[in-house]
Amino acid sequence: MWRELLPIGRHPDSKGYRRYAWTGADTECRAWFKEQAEARGLAYEVDRNGNQWAWAGDPAAGDAVVTGSHLDSVPDGGAFDGPLGVVSSFAALDELRGRGARFTKPLAIVNFGDEEGARFGLACVGSRLTSGQLTVEQAHRLTDGDGVTLPRAMEAAGYDPDALGADPERLARIGAFVELHVEQGRALDLSGDRVGIASAIWPHGRWRFDFRGEANHAGTTRLVDRRDPMLSYAETVLAARREARLAGAVATFGKIAVEPNGVNAIPSLVRGWLDSRAADQDTLDTVVGGIEKAAREYADAHGIDLDVVRESFTPVVEFDHALRDELGRILGKETGTDTGLTVPVLGTGAGHDAGILAGSIPTAMLFVRNPTGVSHSPAEFAAEDDCLAGVRALADVLEGLACR
Amino acid sequence: MWRELLPIGRHPDSKGYRRYAWTGADTECRAWFKEQAEARGLAYEVDRNGNQWAWAGDPAAGDAVVTGSHLDSVPDGGAFDGPLGVVSSFAALDELRGRGARFTKPLAIVNFGDEEGARFGLACVGSRLTSGQLTVEQAHRLTDGDGVTLPRAMEAAGYDPDALGADPERLARIGAFVELHVEQGRALDLSGDRVGIASAIWPHGRWRFDFRGEANHAGTTRLVDRRDPMLSYAETVLAARREARLAGAVATFGKIAVEPNGVNAIPSLVRGWLDSRAADQDTLDTVVGGIEKAAREYADAHGIDLDVVRESFTPVVEFDHALRDELGRILGKETGTDTGLTVPVLGTGAGHDAGILAGSIPTAMLFVRNPTGVSHSPAEFAAEDDCLAGVRALADVLEGLACR
Repeated sequence: MWRELLPIGRHPDSKGYRRYAWTGADTECRAWFKEQAEARGLAYEVDRNGNQWAWAGDPAAGDAVVTGSHLDSVPDGGAFDGPLGVVSSFAALDELRGRGARFTKPLAIVNFGDEEGARFGLACVGSRLTSGQLTVEQAHRLTDGDGVTLPRAMEAAGYDPDALGADPERLARIGAFVELHVEQGRALDLSGDRVGIASAIWPHGRWRFDFRGEANHAGTTRLVDRRDPMLSYAETVLAARREARLAGAVATFGKIAVEPNGVNAIPSLVRGWLDSRAADQDTLDTVVGGIEKAAREYADAHGIDLDVVRESFTPVVEFDHALRDELGRILGKETGTDTGLTVPVLGTGAGHDAGILAGSIPTAMLFVRNPTGVSHSPAEFAAEDDCLAGVRALADVLEGLACR
Repeated sequence: MWRELLPIGRHPDSKGYRRYAWTGADTECRAWFKEQAEARGLAYEVDRNGNQWAWAGDPAAGDAVVTGSHLDSVPDGGAFDGPLGVVSSFAALDELRGRGARFTKPLAIVNFGDEEGARFGLACVGSRLTSGQLTVEQAHRLTDGDGVTLPRAMEAAGYDPDALGADPERLARIGAFVELHVEQGRALDLSGDRVGIASAIWPHGRWRFDFRGEANHAGTTRLVDRRDPMLSYAETVLAARREARLAGAVATFGKIAVEPNGVNAIPSLVRGWLDSRAADQDTLDTVVGGIEKAAREYADAHGIDLDVVRESFTPVVEFDHALRDELGRILGKETGTDTGLTVPVLGTGAGHDAGILAGSIPTAMLFVRNPTGVSHSPAEFAAEDDCLAGVRALADVLEGLACR
């Protein structure tokens, strides 16, 4: 099952995955999902927002237990972020059938569309639309780097963009959603555990810093006559690292656009995107406020105009405490103790569909150990034994929730 | 004449010019040159490297006086860099005919192809080919951002790429080449002169700095676990400014390429291009050596691999001293004194076709005042009175060289 998915959308040079929403690679991944559903006799459907569902039991019965993740990737991403959750969901179902488990509730496996936002710049589009956190009007304005809008891209992939919209009836039928995901940090590696339970997703946001100076000839313009925005950008990159380190948070300038971007031209515009996250809102405000203040001082000193725009923001997401404790009890029992948590509970700086859905339905996440913590890169990894431990833990959770 | 040229290749949003070699805008500029030549009864020809020539008198007579410049532009360049020299050449010929000047030598006006190198990454392709400083094999390997090679681009524009090559016979017929150009600095503005004479072109080069780290998730990777090449890049940008300031040189990071360039991804690669120039070779070596040393220290401190590649280099170009002094005498006489130079002589950090040809034939340059020094930008400017002073000075020079 894993082997069939591996070659899809893998770039021959970078060895990274380029599975962008509604492209050919995405369509192949979706065909794989449908085959897996049908091979298991599950009822396959696509919802109005293009998310794929595979049902065991009657969806209309209500109080369904749902698991799954996503199959799309960041640019040159790894093999595990997303697909591990979907593959583990099918494998956990196989495991439960092998155990002869009898479901008292409907069970579904889901593949949410466009989780990474690599193509249209907004993450978790499928779950945001379904939960009403993204309106149809906003979705219609999403445009990729080639000027193709989301509706046109979905249409080209064979989906009906006129159906887009919130889907409260679908969410009302779900009693719990559990997403398994490769860990994107080293907490489990450091604690020596194979599997962990999510406590919360850190608040995080993206800010665009536009440093505007004056384009000029790099060979003939005296240094004192320059208004070079690259200098203010560089100082701000270093300030971001400093502020984050002081606060125990993270701050990253990973994307940049320069105009005119010529070797012999002083730039007129340097546009840098800041991604910053922290354990709580106050800390995040302090970090981003400190970076912006420093950037303004640098810009003023060089005669640079600075605009800072918050492009997206997600407040802290606390996963449902009752569901989280239940997962702890189920997995504690499984490992031989029934006195409480034996799997660690950890926060994460990454956004997930589970974080989006947590505002609408009880939601939980399981993490599988990642020995290096590397993620969003071809070097992303999880050992086979740890992946199998993840499948068993997910099977236990699904059995605990859907068979009682 | 100026007015017909102004709208060609001007981008409606940036108001800058995008006249890249062998594109539609370039073809329109070249058609304009042919019309100007024919309207004046000049003999029009295109040489084997696609440079355009307009002859008054017999090219075969030898010891020709040639003037001209180029019509192509950098991305979003200004209206003057290049075209001012070509337009002034035709205007100076008109002025001389109005004066009833009688030429004793052949006179030609030239438009060199692909001076800026905006499309294929190498400047002065037309003059380099003609002078043999670029071989046919090297020219065949030049490729634009869309993968189109120079020969295919020339063919698409209606030229024969099989003819490319050095043209020593053509150069042997030229006694002097004078290029008029808008100044790309503020020396004339600061000295209060309309027109100046070039002394030398500073040595200059381009270096590519590849900072390689490790792509990772910007939200979940602890700062201490990161190998973020953007930090070393930022420190190097600031070091470049510092080294250039200390040495009285210029150093610029104006072009950058980042992989994967995602908002939520720590980069795996930050590639920055350094352009640096100084009045002499020793100073340039000191500046670039200092920048590279600093960059290696920063890279080592962050666990970053650094490669530095010199992509191009042009040593100092001293213009022909005899021709330069003769221009000084001609223009000194014209302004009422015959005791020597009354127009300033100045160095420049910019490369020109005249700098390329200076290795083969006696070459000189005239600069016209640029009140802000801004160049390679839509804000590039020269006042009408200064442009007319430039035309008169060029006419005097051509009369002094070709009518004695």
